Amino acid sequence: MTRLQSLLKKNKRRVIGSMSGTSCDGLDLAVVDIKGRGKNSRINVIYTFHVPYTQKQKEYLLDIITSKSMALKDLSQVNFYLAQIWANSIKKMLRRTRISAETIDMIGSHGHTFYHFPQDEKIIDHSVRSTLQLGDPAVLAQLTGITTVGDFRVSDMAVGGQGAPLVPYFDWILFSKYKKNIIALNIGGIANISFIPASGDRGKIIAFDTGPGNMLIDQLMQRLYELPFDRNGRIAKRGHFIPKLFSFLQSRDTYPAQKPPKSTGREHYGSEFVIDIIKKALRWRTPEPDVLNTITRYTAVTVFNAVKDYITDSVDEVVVSGGGSRNPVIMGMLQELFGKVPVKKSIEYGIDVDYKEAICFAVLANELLNGLPTNVKSVTGAHKEILLGKICPV
Amino acid sequence: MTRLQSLLKKNKRRVIGSMSGTSCDGLDLAVVDIKGRGKNSRINVIYTFHVPYTQKQKEYLLDIITSKSMALKDLSQVNFYLAQIWANSIKKMLRRTRISAETIDMIGSHGHTFYHFPQDEKIIDHSVRSTLQLGDPAVLAQLTGITTVGDFRVSDMAVGGQGAPLVPYFDWILFSKYKKNIIALNIGGIANISFIPASGDRGKIIAFDTGPGNMLIDQLMQRLYELPFDRNGRIAKRGHFIPKLFSFLQSRDTYPAQKPPKSTGREHYGSEFVIDIIKKALRWRTPEPDVLNTITRYTAVTVFNAVKDYITDSVDEVVVSGGGSRNPVIMGMLQELFGKVPVKKSIEYGIDVDYKEAICFAVLANELLNGLPTNVKSVTGAHKEILLGKICPV
Repeated sequence: MTRLQSLLKKNKRRVIGSMSGTSCDGLDLAVVDIKGRGKNSRINVIYTFHVPYTQKQKEYLLDIITSKSMALKDLSQVNFYLAQIWANSIKKMLRRTRISAETIDMIGSHGHTFYHFPQDEKIIDHSVRSTLQLGDPAVLAQLTGITTVGDFRVSDMAVGGQGAPLVPYFDWILFSKYKKNIIALNIGGIANISFIPASGDRGKIIAFDTGPGNMLIDQLMQRLYELPFDRNGRIAKRGHFIPKLFSFLQSRDTYPAQKPPKSTGREHYGSEFVIDIIKKALRWRTPEPDVLNTITRYTAVTVFNAVKDYITDSVDEVVVSGGGSRNPVIMGMLQELFGKVPVKKSIEYGIDVDYKEAICFAVLANELLNGLPTNVKSVTGAHKEILLGKICPV
Repeated sequence: MTRLQSLLKKNKRRVIGSMSGTSCDGLDLAVVDIKGRGKNSRINVIYTFHVPYTQKQKEYLLDIITSKSMALKDLSQVNFYLAQIWANSIKKMLRRTRISAETIDMIGSHGHTFYHFPQDEKIIDHSVRSTLQLGDPAVLAQLTGITTVGDFRVSDMAVGGQGAPLVPYFDWILFSKYKKNIIALNIGGIANISFIPASGDRGKIIAFDTGPGNMLIDQLMQRLYELPFDRNGRIAKRGHFIPKLFSFLQSRDTYPAQKPPKSTGREHYGSEFVIDIIKKALRWRTPEPDVLNTITRYTAVTVFNAVKDYITDSVDEVVVSGGGSRNPVIMGMLQELFGKVPVKKSIEYGIDVDYKEAICFAVLANELLNGLPTNVKSVTGAHKEILLGKICPV
């Protein structure tokens, strides 16, 4: 029996989940024990670890990602370079935790997204949509000596999907056993939700980006205070709500009215949007903490309205992850808006709020070995459920 | 048991090997039945098929490959586009042969090489070498419904190898059972050899590029006759050998004197080299057929000298594949040079001379499923033998 055959036979695997986020801040790692398969998976997060990129690494990555044109060589090299630094990060984590590499069954590596183009474009005789995650999983496998699964988004796009979001499958595994209508909310730069119905019916999962997460707050903090973010919501807490500014935001922002499935990003909530806010605030002499308070409320309200407008079933619980869940002002506003529906943090379900995606890709990798499809047709738009990921055995 | 588990358990598999050559002329496909594993593999080629790229497709590919700079999007899109057209080519072949897709166990796809950089370059804090084959194997898997193995070169480079050549493993499987010292010679644009020792000792395999294959002949045919190549060596046959021109070639060409491991390509035997030949021929008023004859002999002699100079064991047989093996003038010259050592075509061993690489990647894919390493350390320079390829299951 080959090593791969033994690995496929296992009912319990220890998997390292790995995620390099689009903000280029660093690598998130999670060591996860997973027993069983599909909805019966039992997930136990053993350890989480973040390795920040150095300033030089961050500049190197952003330079390639944001450049309008580049040499083939740069792309070929960065694909290997990233896998090399990740292999070191994984070894560092294993040394620190004294977890032996031999006890790790595999790595599930999302890779780093360099390009994502979910629209169709005509090339000669074909309609083509594509996505490009780099940080080669075969290089990672060889350098760590651990079988690696990577490149999850590709297959979904090959069958007509958007290649995203992929976390809803993980939310379904996490929450469907509780027989409640659950909203899994992640507040990263952008906020997104998965609705997992009490029935556990995979075809009824709804997931989409609701609008800004920390993106507006963080940019305002940088421009008004030269701080990276509003730690513990301290500035927002000191401020007051300014209805006029809030109304301006509502009229300025066309995204919430779009029907899901939909997604958004920096192209919508980037510097242009923020500069418009600052202009109004200056004209109206709005104190800075009031701006932060109002923007924070706007963020919470867009989440609440998205649920109210697009989720027809009654919601039993909201489970929050992502950096925004560590902002007590947002969390308080969400609880106030959702009223009697409890707003909890994902850690109550064993999922560290900062490592949800890393944990997710450990689970998706595990499901590939279990032979189970992990794209959710109702959210990606794919025309069939298929296996996601490539296996790089060692 | 999952589909992948069933596939791994099989002792006999029907595999489609797929190769898109650097010349961008089209896709080579081979349907291969393979029984057993490693040196005991029994290989039976059922069908071969070539799908030429259209002029537009060829221009599109060459435009990306040769451009000094490009957008990330172009690269992301071509990776999907190629897999889409290949999926159609495979379906076309299956329809034509009436081989049902269900009888195909998997595809072994080399992909199309967009970049290959086997030297080390320092990036921030790491030495990086890399290779980039596009035509995503997961897209190919989804669109054909057939499990696909691809991306063979990556792992070898991750462990310090050159990622090439990979064919020597296939030559070893093909020839080691005959207990003869065999030279497997492939005459493509460049000519290369694998020496497989009678002992079958994998550590004693020697493989390298010997110099020009058809590259000089083809370029001269294009420049002197506006024909793509010297069909059946007709022009060379009419010409005479010109010692002065031959001596010029020997003094102009520094490659043969380099010690293996070594490789070469268009950067050495390209237009500059050919223009120098034509200049001399004009000055000396050498008739065109004489130029072709002399260049053809030069090609044969560089192969012969490479064997004489760098293979210390006595050679029992030379087995030739590649387009050059269909040129009777080259074949005759080789036989003359090698004297009593028989010079045969690979088809005598069941390997269609035009499809050796396609067949090779069917075999390498099959060995990955067998859990066997397929890089040959002595030829790639890797510091260990490892599994090559990524599995994209359906």
